[in-house]
Amino acid sequence: MKKVLVALAPGFEEIETLTVVDILRRAGARVVLAATEEGPIEGSRGVSVLPDALIDQVDDNDFDLLVLPGGQPGTTNLQKSTKVKAIIQNMYQSRKQIAAICAAPTILHSTGILTNTVVTSHPSVKDQLTGIDYSEERVVVDGNIVTSRSPGTALEFSLKLVEILFGRDRMNIVNQGVMARL
Amino acid sequence: MKKVLVALAPGFEEIETLTVVDILRRAGARVVLAATEEGPIEGSRGVSVLPDALIDQVDDNDFDLLVLPGGQPGTTNLQKSTKVKAIIQNMYQSRKQIAAICAAPTILHSTGILTNTVVTSHPSVKDQLTGIDYSEERVVVDGNIVTSRSPGTALEFSLKLVEILFGRDRMNIVNQGVMARL
Repeated sequence: MKKVLVALAPGFEEIETLTVVDILRRAGARVVLAATEEGPIEGSRGVSVLPDALIDQVDDNDFDLLVLPGGQPGTTNLQKSTKVKAIIQNMYQSRKQIAAICAAPTILHSTGILTNTVVTSHPSVKDQLTGIDYSEERVVVDGNIVTSRSPGTALEFSLKLVEILFGRDRMNIVNQGVMARL
Repeated sequence: MKKVLVALAPGFEEIETLTVVDILRRAGARVVLAATEEGPIEGSRGVSVLPDALIDQVDDNDFDLLVLPGGQPGTTNLQKSTKVKAIIQNMYQSRKQIAAICAAPTILHSTGILTNTVVTSHPSVKDQLTGIDYSEERVVVDGNIVTSRSPGTALEFSLKLVEILFGRDRMNIVNQGVMARL
C-alpha cells in the first residue's frame, strides 16, 4: 500500500489539489488530505472542502509521497507552517518522493532541498527560484523531486506520480478511464 | 454578469465538478454549486465539499448555463432528482446553455432534449445514448448543448464554456494563467 500526504491550507488551488487526490485514489494509493487548520478549508476559487486530518497530527514516516498544491494564499499559508517544513526536510532525508506544483516549488526552495535539482513552477514565481536550475517542461522529475506548473498541468503531474509510485502499466490503466492527453 | 448553475449530488466526480467551478469563476462568472441534499457532499473519490445552495431552492430563471458533472453514483443521484429534470427542461425551452460531461449526458437524454443533437459522453455510457448522433470528439457543441467525455477533458470543456459565455479573448486570458493544452 502506497501512502500519499497532500497538504491543504486556506486558499489552495482547487484543480491542483483535487486532481492529485482523485487520480492517486483511482490508482489505489491511500491519500490523506491534511490541513494546516480545522476544516472546512476554503480554496482560492471559493470551494470549501473537508480535510481528512490535521497536518500537525500526521506522522510523516507513514508516507511514501508528499504533495504540495499551489494557489494563493494557499502557498503562502503552507509556507508559514513549521510542520510542513519539518515534513519536507524529514521526507527528503528519508529519500521519500516530494512533489510540488504551481507556486508551491517556492516552499521547497525555502527549505534548501533544491540545490542541484532541476525544477519547474508557475511562470509567475520563476523569479523567486533564485539560483535554481529551471526548466520550462510541464512536469519535471529530478531524483525524488517532482515539480509542475499550473492547473492545466495537474493531470499530467498526477499521472506522473502514479507512474513513479506504481509503474507505467497502472498509469495507463488509470488513464483509460480518465482520458488525459499525455 | 453571467450566472452558472453546477448541479452536485453524492458521488460527483471531483475533477469534473471542481474544474468547471474553478475555471468559470476565474472567467468572472457567478457560479452556484447547488446540491440535491444538505452538505457536506462526498464525491466519488472521497472528497467532501460544501455546496453553495440546495438545488430545490434555486430559481433556474436566474441562470445562463447549467452544468451537469459526471461520476458515479453522482450521475444516478442527479438522474433521480425531479428538480434537476425540471431545470433541464425549463432552461432548454428558454434557450439557455446546457452542458454535461462524462456519464451526465445520459441525464439529458432521459429528458428527451437530445433529438437531432450531436453529443459525446464517457465511452462507458455510449450504449445508453440510443438513437443519438454520437461524436468521439473531446468537447462537442451543438446548438445550446455542450457535452464532453471524462476528467481528462474537463479543462477543455470548462474553457469552451468560458468561450461560449464570454468570448475567445476571455478564454485566452484565463488560460494564460491556467496553461491548459488546447
